[in-house]
Amino acid sequence: MKYPKAIEELIESLRSYPGVGKKTAERYALFTVNRMTDEQIDAIIDAYYHIKTDIFPCPVCGNLTDVDPCYICKDSSRTHETIIVVEEAKDIIAMEKTNQYHGIYHVLNGVINPSAGIGPDDINLTSLLERLQNDAIKEVILATNLNNEGETTANYIRRLLIGTDLLVTRIAHGIPAGGNLEYADESTIAKALEGRRKL
Amino acid sequence: MKYPKAIEELIESLRSYPGVGKKTAERYALFTVNRMTDEQIDAIIDAYYHIKTDIFPCPVCGNLTDVDPCYICKDSSRTHETIIVVEEAKDIIAMEKTNQYHGIYHVLNGVINPSAGIGPDDINLTSLLERLQNDAIKEVILATNLNNEGETTANYIRRLLIGTDLLVTRIAHGIPAGGNLEYADESTIAKALEGRRKL
Repeated sequence: MKYPKAIEELIESLRSYPGVGKKTAERYALFTVNRMTDEQIDAIIDAYYHIKTDIFPCPVCGNLTDVDPCYICKDSSRTHETIIVVEEAKDIIAMEKTNQYHGIYHVLNGVINPSAGIGPDDINLTSLLERLQNDAIKEVILATNLNNEGETTANYIRRLLIGTDLLVTRIAHGIPAGGNLEYADESTIAKALEGRRKL
Repeated sequence: MKYPKAIEELIESLRSYPGVGKKTAERYALFTVNRMTDEQIDAIIDAYYHIKTDIFPCPVCGNLTDVDPCYICKDSSRTHETIIVVEEAKDIIAMEKTNQYHGIYHVLNGVINPSAGIGPDDINLTSLLERLQNDAIKEVILATNLNNEGETTANYIRRLLIGTDLLVTRIAHGIPAGGNLEYADESTIAKALEGRRKL
């Protein structure tokens, strides 16, 4: 027993998404057939089409954008004294949501991961080093994730910048706001202890 | 802080799906941008397009199909002596997966639900009654769900058929295979007890 071809194809396509198994893809596909209007389906088709045609990485920082350079790079009210280095464009969104940062960014688009064969040349490091030649930049804030690859990448960049005048910092890791020691994992607790500050 | 327009639009579209909130829609949209090839996106666009153009309810039974009548209705190896009445086309898929049934189906496309203003005229009952005029049909198996609306609808159909020669049955409800009394809800246990059989 199979669904008609068009439904099977939509199920197959939707299964590419992270965390979407056969059952979930079926639910989405049947919802599409049973509950969506032609207008809603057209809107989805349009959105996918525009993702393909309109979105590209900012040639300067790597942020996902539909203008060149991206709205962060071209915002003259932002300081170019600090640059936050992140793994993925979506990390910029997370950072921007805080409204706490008014500098610029650099997206590595990956992390150094020797076991997956990803070395320093496979991520956007050359373009970072070029940008750091810019006299305006005073501080490089490393915001890669707190795991082996993120730490390796942060350390690699830190070492590359030894001997420059740049201040190289790492974002703090510790118990999250509203978090509870009891439920934090060991490495979070270790980082929280290591990063303790005098009161 | 917002994503570029095309990404925002995809997030909005994907949020229409059941169980998909802002975070999940964001994850899907960013996966689309970051990880999918143009070919994969084209396949999704195609699939949605064909859902819109190729899929329709079978004019005979209401099953979702891309041929008229659907492959179940036109399968001459199936008996027309039994007809299973289900709420939605997806229930046919679930039933067919068992490989235990070789009769035909009728999709009500809904259930009687007075509190939502859905009465007998709002579901595919007239077409069911017309089909039941067919001499071949001997048994009507009511397979609406085990909840207020499903029970109401099953009872309504049962009463409509009083005085006909048709055998009207309801699928069994009880503890599922591999299920455990401890974890079954009250109405399942009540149904399991009510439907007990002599050994």
